[in-house]
Amino acid sequence: MVVVKGLEGVVVDTSDICLIDGNAGRLIYRGYDIHDLVSNLSFEEAAYLVWNGNLPNQSQLDDLKKHLEQERHIPSNLKTAIRNLPTSSDTLDVLRTAISTIGTGIPLTRPDMSKAIAITAKIPTINAAFDRIRRGQEPIEPRTGLGHAANYLYMLTGKDPDPTKVDALNKYFIALADHGMNSSTFAARVVASTWSDMYSAITAAIGALKGPLHGGAPAPVLKMLQDIGKPERAEEWMRGELKAGRRLMGFGHRIYRTTDPRAEILRNVANATSEKDFFALARHVEETGNRILRDYRPERRLYTNVEFYSAVVMHSVDLPPDLFTCTFAASRSVGWTANVLEQVANNRLIRPEIEYTGPMNRKVEPIEQR
Amino acid sequence: MVVVKGLEGVVVDTSDICLIDGNAGRLIYRGYDIHDLVSNLSFEEAAYLVWNGNLPNQSQLDDLKKHLEQERHIPSNLKTAIRNLPTSSDTLDVLRTAISTIGTGIPLTRPDMSKAIAITAKIPTINAAFDRIRRGQEPIEPRTGLGHAANYLYMLTGKDPDPTKVDALNKYFIALADHGMNSSTFAARVVASTWSDMYSAITAAIGALKGPLHGGAPAPVLKMLQDIGKPERAEEWMRGELKAGRRLMGFGHRIYRTTDPRAEILRNVANATSEKDFFALARHVEETGNRILRDYRPERRLYTNVEFYSAVVMHSVDLPPDLFTCTFAASRSVGWTANVLEQVANNRLIRPEIEYTGPMNRKVEPIEQR
Repeated sequence: MVVVKGLEGVVVDTSDICLIDGNAGRLIYRGYDIHDLVSNLSFEEAAYLVWNGNLPNQSQLDDLKKHLEQERHIPSNLKTAIRNLPTSSDTLDVLRTAISTIGTGIPLTRPDMSKAIAITAKIPTINAAFDRIRRGQEPIEPRTGLGHAANYLYMLTGKDPDPTKVDALNKYFIALADHGMNSSTFAARVVASTWSDMYSAITAAIGALKGPLHGGAPAPVLKMLQDIGKPERAEEWMRGELKAGRRLMGFGHRIYRTTDPRAEILRNVANATSEKDFFALARHVEETGNRILRDYRPERRLYTNVEFYSAVVMHSVDLPPDLFTCTFAASRSVGWTANVLEQVANNRLIRPEIEYTGPMNRKVEPIEQR
Repeated sequence: MVVVKGLEGVVVDTSDICLIDGNAGRLIYRGYDIHDLVSNLSFEEAAYLVWNGNLPNQSQLDDLKKHLEQERHIPSNLKTAIRNLPTSSDTLDVLRTAISTIGTGIPLTRPDMSKAIAITAKIPTINAAFDRIRRGQEPIEPRTGLGHAANYLYMLTGKDPDPTKVDALNKYFIALADHGMNSSTFAARVVASTWSDMYSAITAAIGALKGPLHGGAPAPVLKMLQDIGKPERAEEWMRGELKAGRRLMGFGHRIYRTTDPRAEILRNVANATSEKDFFALARHVEETGNRILRDYRPERRLYTNVEFYSAVVMHSVDLPPDLFTCTFAASRSVGWTANVLEQVANNRLIRPEIEYTGPMNRKVEPIEQR
């Protein structure tokens, strides 16, 4: 038996949603390059594309916006459930529990587009509601006329959101909306392949996104930047980490052998939004890290990944670090749900095998002889 | 690229926990044959074995029983959360939400044995609490001195459980405790591979178990038996289903090419516990189904699977059909958590690939030209 630990290089299915070209550093949704999408679309248009395979015309876009607007509100029993959770909770644990809660009281039905839209619409509302509740503030209802990115910033603060920050978050949401068979999307497909429901699949995905090897990395990147503090301290700090046997957060990706295109996009966004000195620090840490890692691991070709500039962008739109990963979920929800819909449209139960390497031919002995 | 849809035959890792020999119809936990385990152990001993790799001596068993006893109680905020859910909820949706809720308010920590025990201990309490709440009754606290199976029946009814039924449920719990890389266990490993936490992993597993292609099958088996009603109606009824293009529930398994050993075990349990006529009906439906399927799909070698007699056994211990799958979870939780512990002991991120088959080289056009 050939054991493929981690399933690296194993192709689990075909998909019309997303192409990652790790050697060329290209990311494509439905045939469109990610640079083209981020430069020209709103998050709602990109979500429509990922879900439906084509860009919307004006009336299709208006319909989607209206549907998202209706679905942004969360029911009162969900607010009660969120208030019932410890205020010290990890925001991903809250989001996972909230999506699971929304899935109760509904008969088992095949995942469909209306659930994809409902879940995506509600994630920012859930994140913002918990953030306010834990700070002793009342949750703020979504405001009609504001989109996914603007409403999120509005529901967190209660203030009219700054257009530059809305634009930055919109671009972040588009760039992170899907990324092939990452672990959370794959977890959602495994769950959906049993003919379970959309909420079960997305609950699984949120649990996977939480992990530090997946969506949990941006907050430690911010901490690294804050610990380093000044450009001139970067090299010594980073060499110290490597000497201590620790990884540098925000560098390296299993698939990209060159710069992650999302890191490029978010670097530009950060340049437009971040405080000048902080961006200069990030840029210096990036260059120093890339250079040091070429010395340390020349065979690996490690570069800054999406988490690095995700952290810088989210910090620049005033999100606290412990909202970084649940904000990622507000974008990736589009890819998760699109993949679930694709899985169930042409389903086969995902059930691999494992090679048994344990003992054999044992017999139960009476307990007094053990 | 070779696409392996459903990952059939792909070996994702090595494991010392469970061997399924699909051709010989054998199931082994940690080197012991399932028939040997079911005949000679309590559920607690089997759980100790699956978790630790060896059978417990008396003091190890006493410690585990004490630990399970302490962990059976559920905190008051969890009871509040369960009361907050619609009484019409699917029991798997409730269990998924409850386990997710228990995982809040805890800092991210590496999965460990104490969480494996805590989750396993609490599943029967959660199932029973919701079952009573939805029927307008007060939940019953677990009783000191009763084990996993006995406590479950006690908390559901408030009555001293019948020893024959406790024994049947104990055997069911042992037989179902683990089964290789089934979809729910695999989902738990995918989530754990990101370094997420135990609750996230088990929440994902519960969502996968819900699916009718996985743990959701026993209730439809019972419905089939009740619809057939009398042995003499079996052949016509089953041929009718196949002619209508539907599957026969409770027959066939991706791995077993002969009788599932768990079906044999549970057939014996059902024989000892079930009402005589009902067991005779089940036996006749089994034989009829096996015979008809040999005609219909001679290449497939389909036999009754574990779900078939799971349904008969759970019905015989007075469980309502919509508790069948969440009762399955009260057993499989052992395998899920053992697999999570094995995954994190020698981890590699589970991240496969997918082959892109969508369009290429598209350019974003202005919305008025779409």
